[in-house]
Amino acid sequence: MIIALSGGIGGAKLALGLSQVLPPGELLIVANTGDDFEHLGLSISPDIDTLTYALAGLDNTELGWGRRDETWSFMETLGAIGGETWFRLGDRDLALHVERTRRLCAGETLSAVTADVARRLGIAPRLLPMSDDPVRTRILSDGVWIDFQDWFVRQRCAPAFHGLEFAGAAEARPQPELLAALRAGPRAVVICPSNPFISIEPILAVPGLRAAIAACGAPVIAVSPIIAGQAVKGPTATMFAQSGTAPSAAAVAARYADILTHYVMEPGDDAAGIAARVSRAPILMRTLEDKISLARAVLAAIG
Amino acid sequence: MIIALSGGIGGAKLALGLSQVLPPGELLIVANTGDDFEHLGLSISPDIDTLTYALAGLDNTELGWGRRDETWSFMETLGAIGGETWFRLGDRDLALHVERTRRLCAGETLSAVTADVARRLGIAPRLLPMSDDPVRTRILSDGVWIDFQDWFVRQRCAPAFHGLEFAGAAEARPQPELLAALRAGPRAVVICPSNPFISIEPILAVPGLRAAIAACGAPVIAVSPIIAGQAVKGPTATMFAQSGTAPSAAAVAARYADILTHYVMEPGDDAAGIAARVSRAPILMRTLEDKISLARAVLAAIG
Repeated sequence: MIIALSGGIGGAKLALGLSQVLPPGELLIVANTGDDFEHLGLSISPDIDTLTYALAGLDNTELGWGRRDETWSFMETLGAIGGETWFRLGDRDLALHVERTRRLCAGETLSAVTADVARRLGIAPRLLPMSDDPVRTRILSDGVWIDFQDWFVRQRCAPAFHGLEFAGAAEARPQPELLAALRAGPRAVVICPSNPFISIEPILAVPGLRAAIAACGAPVIAVSPIIAGQAVKGPTATMFAQSGTAPSAAAVAARYADILTHYVMEPGDDAAGIAARVSRAPILMRTLEDKISLARAVLAAIG
Repeated sequence: MIIALSGGIGGAKLALGLSQVLPPGELLIVANTGDDFEHLGLSISPDIDTLTYALAGLDNTELGWGRRDETWSFMETLGAIGGETWFRLGDRDLALHVERTRRLCAGETLSAVTADVARRLGIAPRLLPMSDDPVRTRILSDGVWIDFQDWFVRQRCAPAFHGLEFAGAAEARPQPELLAALRAGPRAVVICPSNPFISIEPILAVPGLRAAIAACGAPVIAVSPIIAGQAVKGPTATMFAQSGTAPSAAAVAARYADILTHYVMEPGDDAAGIAARVSRAPILMRTLEDKISLARAVLAAIG
């Protein structure tokens, strides 16, 4: 079993690549849920949703987020009756949030809902949240804690990043299948090219997961989300800079130093100081072929 | 003040007519909430919504229900992920349910949400529910109680109608503004051409409302929802027949006999046995002009 840890957009690209080159039974994709939040009374899991849409071929490639063939009648009407419109929910996307919320309220786990929706949308590999317990990333800015989506979407990352916490993480239990897969001796753990601060580290903050990865005996391979000091997408580079570290592929690797055995980074980027075994591959994934190529490079790196 | 009691489609047509001929401050429209239900985790108020859309000019005249310019992406997607699709919620319509549910959960009353949405959509007269407390109509069929929307929409009125109850009505408090308006001496109470069993009688079942109407000292005028023994729309005629009464304008009037002073019915229909003062007017409302004409006929009847 290959266990892939992923955040949203970037991670989902590699997860899709892996899903194309591995037999379905040999891939377990684990989604960050630190970005999850409750909005308009709905339980929204942005990284699970991004992975779901990407793996089902339903992602909106024009927007770069959300669902393909999306319409916006709900949002337009919500604005007209005075509702909050800063987090844009498409009409199709909304179906997932409403149905998930209904099922969670009826007592189902996030894992059960996620896996069932994935199955119904024809996703072959297993897709699970890191935990069925709520973990909520919050950003510290000038002494004030800001809920992650408020900072990320509503305020467009404008408040300076001075720190973060994963509220609830200390009490969260690792998703049981994930823990079992780590203990059963996986073929490898793949850390997808996601933001370390807000996509991968919430997963590693779930008690027992970081230790179980370190102890699993398999290669732990990360793919850099940084090319030439720039993040492909999102606030990764800014978060490094505002926390006093120059953004680089090596700076990402350093955050995983205790568990990392292998690292895939862009040809030409500086590997100085990286303790893991470094492989080089183009990490920008524009096409499906790019995603498959990078997935193959990851598998080749671990042999 | 004219107080108009209304269910959905038929009642909303006369309510719209009244709104066109009365100054906004002189019309209070009271919606049945016995049809309300919780579905997909959302609080849905079909008669409030129908009135809201009709009064705002946003009703879907092609479908005969729901919102104008509607799209169906949500419903289509909900079906694809295994959600329940028997109650069709359009993308625009959904915005009202999601926002109402959020506001009710935050502690607002149904009255406050209804009035605020009406104001935002430019509805001039006051629109209020009969009560802020839940009342739920249930249909008795072959000894089994069926939730109203289950019977009405999912089962398309197929189970025979043997009786009904308004669960929660005994504990429901009348909407305070409505009660105050009745006590202040209204100019008239208008019972719109809605189904007596499931649209008007739930309103009259709220403790104190029937007595307050009887005691208000003003004309109480109903408009027949029956023409030549047929209901314009919905199960009114069937419910009469299955409860052992031939459907007729007079049969409707008989159900309001204790409060009715005036009655408007189709020219040619039999008025025998009606104790109230009868006026004749075409009661089928196809166009806005029809609605205005009937509203004028109602006002003329009470002088």
